[in-house]
Amino acid sequence: MWADLAGIGRSAESGGYRRYAWTAADAECRAWFREQAEARGLVYEVDRNGNQWAWLGDPAAGDAVVTGSHLDSVPDGGAFDGPLGVVSSFAALDELRGRGVTFNRPVAVANFGDEEGARFGLACTGSRLTAGQLTREAAHALRDADGVRLAQAMEAAGHDPDAIGPDPERLGRIGAFVELHIEQGRALDLTRDRVGIASAIWPHGRWRFDFRGEANHAGTTRLADRRDPMLTYAETVLAARREAELAGAVATFGKVAVEPNGVNAIPSLVRGWLDSRAADQDALDTVVAAVEAAARERAQRDGVDLDVVRESFTPVVEFEHALRDELGKILGGAVPLLGTGAGHDAGILSGSIPTAMLFVRNPTGVSHSPAEFAAEDDCAAGVLALADVLEGLACR
Amino acid sequence: MWADLAGIGRSAESGGYRRYAWTAADAECRAWFREQAEARGLVYEVDRNGNQWAWLGDPAAGDAVVTGSHLDSVPDGGAFDGPLGVVSSFAALDELRGRGVTFNRPVAVANFGDEEGARFGLACTGSRLTAGQLTREAAHALRDADGVRLAQAMEAAGHDPDAIGPDPERLGRIGAFVELHIEQGRALDLTRDRVGIASAIWPHGRWRFDFRGEANHAGTTRLADRRDPMLTYAETVLAARREAELAGAVATFGKVAVEPNGVNAIPSLVRGWLDSRAADQDALDTVVAAVEAAARERAQRDGVDLDVVRESFTPVVEFEHALRDELGKILGGAVPLLGTGAGHDAGILSGSIPTAMLFVRNPTGVSHSPAEFAAEDDCAAGVLALADVLEGLACR
Repeated sequence: MWADLAGIGRSAESGGYRRYAWTAADAECRAWFREQAEARGLVYEVDRNGNQWAWLGDPAAGDAVVTGSHLDSVPDGGAFDGPLGVVSSFAALDELRGRGVTFNRPVAVANFGDEEGARFGLACTGSRLTAGQLTREAAHALRDADGVRLAQAMEAAGHDPDAIGPDPERLGRIGAFVELHIEQGRALDLTRDRVGIASAIWPHGRWRFDFRGEANHAGTTRLADRRDPMLTYAETVLAARREAELAGAVATFGKVAVEPNGVNAIPSLVRGWLDSRAADQDALDTVVAAVEAAARERAQRDGVDLDVVRESFTPVVEFEHALRDELGKILGGAVPLLGTGAGHDAGILSGSIPTAMLFVRNPTGVSHSPAEFAAEDDCAAGVLALADVLEGLACR
Repeated sequence: MWADLAGIGRSAESGGYRRYAWTAADAECRAWFREQAEARGLVYEVDRNGNQWAWLGDPAAGDAVVTGSHLDSVPDGGAFDGPLGVVSSFAALDELRGRGVTFNRPVAVANFGDEEGARFGLACTGSRLTAGQLTREAAHALRDADGVRLAQAMEAAGHDPDAIGPDPERLGRIGAFVELHIEQGRALDLTRDRVGIASAIWPHGRWRFDFRGEANHAGTTRLADRRDPMLTYAETVLAARREAELAGAVATFGKVAVEPNGVNAIPSLVRGWLDSRAADQDALDTVVAAVEAAARERAQRDGVDLDVVRESFTPVVEFEHALRDELGKILGGAVPLLGTGAGHDAGILSGSIPTAMLFVRNPTGVSHSPAEFAAEDDCAAGVLALADVLEGLACR
């Protein structure tokens, strides 16, 4: 299965994947999914929001156990983020058929559309629509960097954009959703475990810091006469790292925009985006408040005006304890529980149905990069764990 | 004269000027120059490099006294940087004619092309070509942001690009060049003088700092596992300010480029440009070495690789002492001498002919901005001082 996927949407230049929603590379991935379903005699479906499904047993019977993940990627992403969950789902079904088990519940593999949001800027579009967390109107209004609307892109790819919307009937058939995913940090590697169970998705948000100073000549303006927002920005970047360390959280300035951005011009505006996440809401609030306080103190010294705008926020997602504990029992007590700072379709769906996640070791912790990596042995352990979970949930 | 120029190339949005070389706005400015020359019965010429000249007396007589400046602007520049020098030159000639003086030497007003380098990235292109500091081949290779070559732009504006090159014969006719310019700092305002004489242009340069780390997920990568070049950049920005303060110099990071520049991505590359200038070479060397040392120390802590490349450098320009002293005598002993951090056509030409500069007070010090300002009284004082200088040099 890996070999068929390996070439799709891969950039020869970077070695990374560029599989964006409703593009040609996405269509190839989706064709691959359909082939896998049909080769196994599974019932193939595309739902109203463009998510793909492959059913073993009667989709309408209810109380189904669903697994799967996504096939799209971030720009120059790695091979595992998303596809590992889909490939492992089919492989786990193969494993269970080899074991000769009997299924008491329907089982399905799902591929959720546009999880990364690389093209239209909103993550988990497919699962958000299904869960009713994104309206049709808001989805139709999304545009990519070339100005193409999501509705146009869907239509060009052969999907009816007017059909999209909440799908409670479909969610009502699902008793449990389990998503396997490569870990995006090094927690499992540090404890020398191959597989872990997700406890929660950390609360996280994005804040835009607008530092406004005064454009001026970099060669002739005395230091004392400057209102240089680059200085305030720099102090704030270092404060974010310091406060995150103190709180055991993460905080990152990864994106910045400068005006006029000239070598010999003191900037009039430096705009920086803070991404911060923490194990709980209090810790996150503490970090962001401390970063903002440090920024305001320095802004005053620099004669710079500061506006802070929260652009997005997702509260903590605690995966359902009953399902999580059941996974723990099925896999034996030694499997560690771990939180994660990344969003997932399983997090979106957890508001509607019981969801759980399995993580597979990432020895370098590298994610969203061509260098992302998981060892073959660990991937195989992930498939066996997922097979055990599906057997435990659907065959007893 | 001001009223005719005020509307040309002015952005309604920013209120700043966008007069880039060989554009329609530039052509309007050049037409204005020609009208001013012809209205005064001056001999109008365009030299091989596109610089404009307006002669009173025989251009070929030799030992001419030339004044002038430039009419182009930086992006969203102010009204005075450049045009004040050209307008004051014509006004000074009017003043001298009113005084009924007799000229013993030819006098000319010049408008040098593309002083700011806003379009093709190289400052003082017109005077550099004339002085032989820029070859025809190098000039032909310059491109603007749309990929248009300087040669194409010149041709489209009706100037033969194959004619450009050094012009020693023309420089040989000039005995002294005096450029009047708005001050780009607040030195005159601090000493409450309307007009000053330039002592020197500070040595200055641009250094590109490439900070390379590792792209990674901002939500899931532990702080300890990161190689985040934004941190190293931030520390370096603050070091530049600190070291410039210690040395009595200026140092600025006004331009930055980040890859991949995503809100949820630790950057793989942060590229920052340092612009630094100081009163002498030793001070400048000290600042740049200290900034680089601070950057390297932090880079090691952050696991970041650093390359520093000097992209341009201009040594100190000492204006000719004899001419400078003569200006001082003509204007009386009370006129202050001041250095400047900005480059000028007078600086380029100082390698070939005796040059001097007069500065007019800038009460806010704001430069390269729509908010640039000079008071009418101070501008009038500048015109009188320039008229006195021309009279002193050309009429005795």
